[in-house]
Amino acid sequence: MITGKNYIGNTLSAKGTKTYTTFNPQLNQENSISFVEATTKEIDLAVQLATNAYPQFSGLSGTRKAEFLNAIADEILALDDLLIKTYCSESGLPEGRAIGERGRTVGQLRSFAEMVKEGSWVEASIDTALPDRTPVPKPDLRKMLIPLGPVVVFGASNFPLAYSTAGGDTAAALAAGCPVIVKSHPMHAGTGELVASAIIKAAAKTKMPNGVFSNLNSSGIEVGVSLVKHPGVKAVGFTGSIRGGRALFDLASQRKEPIPVFAEMGSVNPVVILPEAAKKRGETLANTYASSITLGSGQFCTNPGLLLGIKGDALTAFIKNLSDAIVKIEPSCMLHPNIIGAYENNKQKAVSQSGLQVVADFGAGVQSNYARQTVTTVEGKTFLENTTLHQEVFGPYSIVVQCKDKNQLEQIVAHLEGQLTGTIIAEEDELKEYKEIVSALQNRVGRLIYNGVPTGVEVCPSMQHGGPYPASTDSRFTAVGIHSVKRWVRPISYQDWPDSQLPDALKNSNPLGISRLVNNEKTNRKL
Amino acid sequence: MITGKNYIGNTLSAKGTKTYTTFNPQLNQENSISFVEATTKEIDLAVQLATNAYPQFSGLSGTRKAEFLNAIADEILALDDLLIKTYCSESGLPEGRAIGERGRTVGQLRSFAEMVKEGSWVEASIDTALPDRTPVPKPDLRKMLIPLGPVVVFGASNFPLAYSTAGGDTAAALAAGCPVIVKSHPMHAGTGELVASAIIKAAAKTKMPNGVFSNLNSSGIEVGVSLVKHPGVKAVGFTGSIRGGRALFDLASQRKEPIPVFAEMGSVNPVVILPEAAKKRGETLANTYASSITLGSGQFCTNPGLLLGIKGDALTAFIKNLSDAIVKIEPSCMLHPNIIGAYENNKQKAVSQSGLQVVADFGAGVQSNYARQTVTTVEGKTFLENTTLHQEVFGPYSIVVQCKDKNQLEQIVAHLEGQLTGTIIAEEDELKEYKEIVSALQNRVGRLIYNGVPTGVEVCPSMQHGGPYPASTDSRFTAVGIHSVKRWVRPISYQDWPDSQLPDALKNSNPLGISRLVNNEKTNRKL
Repeated sequence: MITGKNYIGNTLSAKGTKTYTTFNPQLNQENSISFVEATTKEIDLAVQLATNAYPQFSGLSGTRKAEFLNAIADEILALDDLLIKTYCSESGLPEGRAIGERGRTVGQLRSFAEMVKEGSWVEASIDTALPDRTPVPKPDLRKMLIPLGPVVVFGASNFPLAYSTAGGDTAAALAAGCPVIVKSHPMHAGTGELVASAIIKAAAKTKMPNGVFSNLNSSGIEVGVSLVKHPGVKAVGFTGSIRGGRALFDLASQRKEPIPVFAEMGSVNPVVILPEAAKKRGETLANTYASSITLGSGQFCTNPGLLLGIKGDALTAFIKNLSDAIVKIEPSCMLHPNIIGAYENNKQKAVSQSGLQVVADFGAGVQSNYARQTVTTVEGKTFLENTTLHQEVFGPYSIVVQCKDKNQLEQIVAHLEGQLTGTIIAEEDELKEYKEIVSALQNRVGRLIYNGVPTGVEVCPSMQHGGPYPASTDSRFTAVGIHSVKRWVRPISYQDWPDSQLPDALKNSNPLGISRLVNNEKTNRKL
Repeated sequence: MITGKNYIGNTLSAKGTKTYTTFNPQLNQENSISFVEATTKEIDLAVQLATNAYPQFSGLSGTRKAEFLNAIADEILALDDLLIKTYCSESGLPEGRAIGERGRTVGQLRSFAEMVKEGSWVEASIDTALPDRTPVPKPDLRKMLIPLGPVVVFGASNFPLAYSTAGGDTAAALAAGCPVIVKSHPMHAGTGELVASAIIKAAAKTKMPNGVFSNLNSSGIEVGVSLVKHPGVKAVGFTGSIRGGRALFDLASQRKEPIPVFAEMGSVNPVVILPEAAKKRGETLANTYASSITLGSGQFCTNPGLLLGIKGDALTAFIKNLSDAIVKIEPSCMLHPNIIGAYENNKQKAVSQSGLQVVADFGAGVQSNYARQTVTTVEGKTFLENTTLHQEVFGPYSIVVQCKDKNQLEQIVAHLEGQLTGTIIAEEDELKEYKEIVSALQNRVGRLIYNGVPTGVEVCPSMQHGGPYPASTDSRFTAVGIHSVKRWVRPISYQDWPDSQLPDALKNSNPLGISRLVNNEKTNRKL
């Protein structure tokens, strides 16, 4: 049952007076449940409980944390149809997508559980003493990763499950040993509360300290701002717009004690189509990209919003084929009237720029909150000179840039802002011929794709999801995959510490049987 | 020969009109060579050359980068006596220290050379494709670390070699594949130029691209500010004061494209002396700490500036013994009149606080620029209430806080700012009895020492040098040891990339023979 209340630790709480509802974009109407925003006192209490929970939670064994993470996955599945129905009613997304995203969410939780249970992720490193070394003895030094402290997570509007309440950021932070406070996304507050209730149930079942998790409702920016400025908060995870992410980054940097913010923000995910590939596979490519651009109404951070090619018959044919294919696709519902409003505004802003030509537009006769997909094209020179055209239009929109030659293409790629992904569509021989372009693209992106589409972010250790600013606020970390835990931990060294008092990961006997760097050699052996 | 000029890439350049000299604190006089500050044009050119050098340098093999790093070490040694004499004349530090620090510098360069030659540091990770997976095929994904781009390094006044021109930050950044621009420290500009000449010679001998290294003279803040704000600069390393480090962090965070700043800043390095240990080993401890506090005139970032104990006969005796021991130590020369001026000012500010008692002071009759070591003591309550007493007094100064009980001691530890190190002096049984204090201290520090002194920072993989703010601006990284390379790199994923076009580290045949994570298993095998 959805109560509309906050979870302040284990306790349902609704002390505030400000309320809001979620919206069903398919029915074009407000949902009925009223959500109560968290008050300043509730925020303080959530942070205090998280701070109190930290010493105990951060010291738990990997096995205990794995129990918790697996129990969260179980409890999410136990929400069953109620979760799926609530998800759909708050996002306009189809049931298949809800089920798929739930699978991804549960899969992420279980893969972090496996990681902490195995235990080698703490990067244990041991350098034993050399008491007889001259001129000074070498001390015994042992290093491992420990959690930073309470983490605040801002969920994404476009992933109500996998990048929200119990999504990648939360799973990684809990795996690290950090208590988590979620600033619930107002567009899917009911989905958020259900998932929060699953986490709270799992915490009770596995005997986690109260405060290990809180879920705060909020329709505006105040709750988020208070959390990021709160001295008890030690790190922030965010998925959303550049404006939102940058605002949080600025707040966190200006604190007396600055804290890390990992914000995964916008991206136009440039796709470079090289001439031979355009010639040989133009038609297939056009169909593939028509699907990728419109997938999930274009509401993916990896949506291909910028296609770059060299002017000529092959590119002209590709544009024609893409236009023909994309208008045949049925429009789909966007997440919220605000999202479709922003889509139409941003598209209008782009389209009104001088030199831009609309080559495909679904046209009229579309249901409320359904997005009309659009493709535009522009000359390379115009694109280079007008950075408005470089901005993301979040939704099923893409611009095809027709460069006059290879040099102009390279120049455009080198001048792009940081991106989550970059794609090269090429015949294998062309990769060598255009190696400067490949190299320039590599310097702007977190993930480089060959002959594919950027949509579809595999969850696996080799995935990098993040990239140079503004794709993310710190390109040195990933938001997806088990290595995303590194955002929430720091190394600590123990010098000459008695073996019995060391954490298990660093003890001589290696009771966890983990892989460690011992005197520069990777080994699972005991000392 | 020292020219007083800048190295703008390979070229000695002195276009500016602003000049300055270094100072010999032992002789209490200016040195004769005049250094010419870098101009805006020279700064721009250095960044441009670094940007141009980046694509080539970042793509070099580990073997080639190792040649460069080892050649730098060789060329530094070849500077021989001139380097040692210049070092001493610009720092007032004794020859033994200069030789020791040169050894550390050369050792760091060689250990990074070994790391990049071996090659596994890039954390290669491979997840092979599952083309038949349903509902969607799994792509082939391969991830590794790549360099961020041009890095600016600000050297430390107190380590003219090991944390300056070719110190830890530079060695790590070059190992990563990042071109480096050093903002030369004005107090040891001659030492800096000599080391820069060694790097430039090594770059020429090993055929590195022009711009892989530049060295810019500067006596004020302008050159540093310009560098940190420059769009071509992608990361910053700094060692020095909290004020300086925070200013650079703020500048970097406020850029249109924010960049990471790793600043290793101040620390008082709290030492907790537990009652049994004070009772049993008080006298030995007093001697050990008298030496640690005065080592190198207290000019170490790990200098123990805060000793915490529980009021009683044992602590009273310890204070008496420490005071007796420390005044017997001969004062030594500080780095510069500005440093000793700041020492005397900060000490005066501390000593003038109400409730503070001076228990040891070397007194009069000290040579110019030689520091008079001082020990003070204060009640726990006074310390808790007056955060001025928590501030670092850079130099041979320490304050002994007498807590009324265990609770007050825990309260003080929990309220400390972030620290590079924390030390527990205890009998082994006491660690359990005082486990809340140990846990509170762990949350405030980067390195936890048992029954030792914080001075002496071993260079090895298990060293963590850094800590919660303001010990450093990002506790997730270390400034010492091979893992410090992680500050200057980011992961990139290649999706479905043709094997022949992948970097060697990710190729099926594993031509580098490095350790990789392949489908979740660590292995050196080829695919």
